[in-house]
Amino acid sequence: MKLGAIEAGGTKFVCAVGTEKGEILEKIIIPTQTPEKTLSKVIEFFQKKSIESLGIGSFGPIDINKKSDTYGAILNTPKFAWRDYPFLESMKQALDIPIGFTTDVNEAALGEFTFGAAKGLESCLYITVGTGIGAGMIIKGKILQGLSHPEMGHIIVRRHPKDDYLGGCPTHQDCLEGLASGPAIENRWRKKGIELSEQQEVWEMEAYYLAQALVQYIMILMPQKIIIGGGVAKQKSLFPLIRKKVKELLNGYLTYKEFNEEIRNYIVPPELGDCAGIIGGLVLAKEVIKKRD
Amino acid sequence: MKLGAIEAGGTKFVCAVGTEKGEILEKIIIPTQTPEKTLSKVIEFFQKKSIESLGIGSFGPIDINKKSDTYGAILNTPKFAWRDYPFLESMKQALDIPIGFTTDVNEAALGEFTFGAAKGLESCLYITVGTGIGAGMIIKGKILQGLSHPEMGHIIVRRHPKDDYLGGCPTHQDCLEGLASGPAIENRWRKKGIELSEQQEVWEMEAYYLAQALVQYIMILMPQKIIIGGGVAKQKSLFPLIRKKVKELLNGYLTYKEFNEEIRNYIVPPELGDCAGIIGGLVLAKEVIKKRD
Ligand SMILES: Nc1ncnc2c1ncn2[C@@H]1O[C@H](COP(=O)(O)OP(=O)(O)O)[C@@H](O)[C@H]1O
Ligand SMILES: Nc1ncnc2c1ncn2[C@@H]1O[C@H](COP(=O)(O)OP(=O)(O)O)[C@@H](O)[C@H]1O
Ligand SMILES: [Zn+2]
Ligand SMILES: [Zn+2]
Repeated sequence: MKLGAIEAGGTKFVCAVGTEKGEILEKIIIPTQTPEKTLSKVIEFFQKKSIESLGIGSFGPIDINKKSDTYGAILNTPKFAWRDYPFLESMKQALDIPIGFTTDVNEAALGEFTFGAAKGLESCLYITVGTGIGAGMIIKGKILQGLSHPEMGHIIVRRHPKDDYLGGCPTHQDCLEGLASGPAIENRWRKKGIELSEQQEVWEMEAYYLAQALVQYIMILMPQKIIIGGGVAKQKSLFPLIRKKVKELLNGYLTYKEFNEEIRNYIVPPELGDCAGIIGGLVLAKEVIKKRD
Repeated sequence: MKLGAIEAGGTKFVCAVGTEKGEILEKIIIPTQTPEKTLSKVIEFFQKKSIESLGIGSFGPIDINKKSDTYGAILNTPKFAWRDYPFLESMKQALDIPIGFTTDVNEAALGEFTFGAAKGLESCLYITVGTGIGAGMIIKGKILQGLSHPEMGHIIVRRHPKDDYLGGCPTHQDCLEGLASGPAIENRWRKKGIELSEQQEVWEMEAYYLAQALVQYIMILMPQKIIIGGGVAKQKSLFPLIRKKVKELLNGYLTYKEFNEEIRNYIVPPELGDCAGIIGGLVLAKEVIKKRD
């Protein structure tokens, strides 16, 4: 079975053809320009591939409400050309196949849940810490969404007492994303994250914020595993720091082994690396066929 | 169809017989003593009623993992006699009918979702602010649970700059429950909540904490409605204060009407009043029959 997948980001679109087993057969990267320019290249790529369905994970916020007029569009994004552009609808008209549409982090969560670090479990949470922060939750194989998709990057955190960076979220200033995204690190320490590897206090502070976020996700969602991806999580020294602080914050309240002796296997990097999203797109593509049948 | 429901609390057990339409036909209240004493009275009540199934919502934390040895028991509760006592198992052996088992807040969430403030919606969150703080989330008719049930009362909040009360949670000290439960109010202001009605600063501070919690739940779960119950929420002046602060914290990030012009209908008291839990128990009882069929 040939399936298509798109990971639609603010800087690049990754498009792939693959199988229901999560194998990628072919992949291209298209730089994100105006919707018209970008999507015509995307459509051109898929048109000759005879895929049965397509899964899209998009940067957001997006409209996932099927009853809404703007269903399948990207909403109030700072990328003005994309705002309210009928992304999903354009793809449907061009390709005429079933298409699944969700956020980029939900797509990655679905990939790790099905073929990666959370394979065989009933639930997992995937958080990306990169240019922005976002997370997706899978429960019993389904993507968690209510009124809309979650906005887990914009939760409130306690400020670190030694942190004098004001925060960079245009809406909330010092929410999690405002204090702990890649650009926040760069603005606070005046160097790129990758150049700060040796500076212990940078990662202590980063772990202070991310551990708080993880504790909120745990208390509210109780995922069976937490996977941390994105550029900032390439800083592997972060993982032990985060695990230690999560344990401290939980303070033994939850007696499950996942939060105690087995926390090393509870808070983990993605097993699919940078392919979590695109592989999740294949899973989503598979699901829309099932739903139609 | 006659169904049974239990709302098992630390001070009292409410037991009722009712119907699948949420009507209560008969109700008794049994004070919580040792498990043996309490449950023998509970069983006696139900034994003569020929109910088809039973729904239990219990104080917690409880073990909801069907594969676990202690499934259906109350776990590390400060009520030592109840700790690890096979609550569900005892009921099953005595009554020999299908029994559904969840937390007290999940049960109330199910009641409000099916017959109360969230009737007709796809999701809702119910939070109780009383002796403790807890919340339950329903999505597409299902109770949200992962590795275990949520522990939403123990999330991290930013301390109010003028608050010098240290917090009363035995595990986390100044988590949400430690700062905003009924006993926290009483310890901070040296008077019972009900005697503080006229003191504006009490409810400003309370709303400061509860609004933060609601914002976390919104960003992480996106419920279609939030219902606030429990003793402290009887203080009706809290609702406008909470709504105002939630709006301030969200700061327009989410453009849905629920968070803006219609927030009055988004953050609401329970429609079923103090019966949300017991009516939810009837819903749960109905569901275990469906599952068996
Ligand atoms: N090894 C690294 N250590 C710390 N930060 C990094 C590292 N690699 C990339 N980053 C940061 O991650 C961010 C980019 O995140 P990434 O997930 O790659 O992209 P995006 O979020 O745009 O999809 C940048 O702010 C970058 O500085
Ligand atoms: N009208 C009120 N205003 C403020 N606080 C109240 C009010 N009524 C009860 N409370 C507080 O609520 C708490 C009890 O909560 P309740 O939900 O009734 O019981 P429980 O949580 O034990 O089931 C107590 O701390 C009490 O002081
Ligand atoms: Zn923000
Ligand atoms: Zn606590």
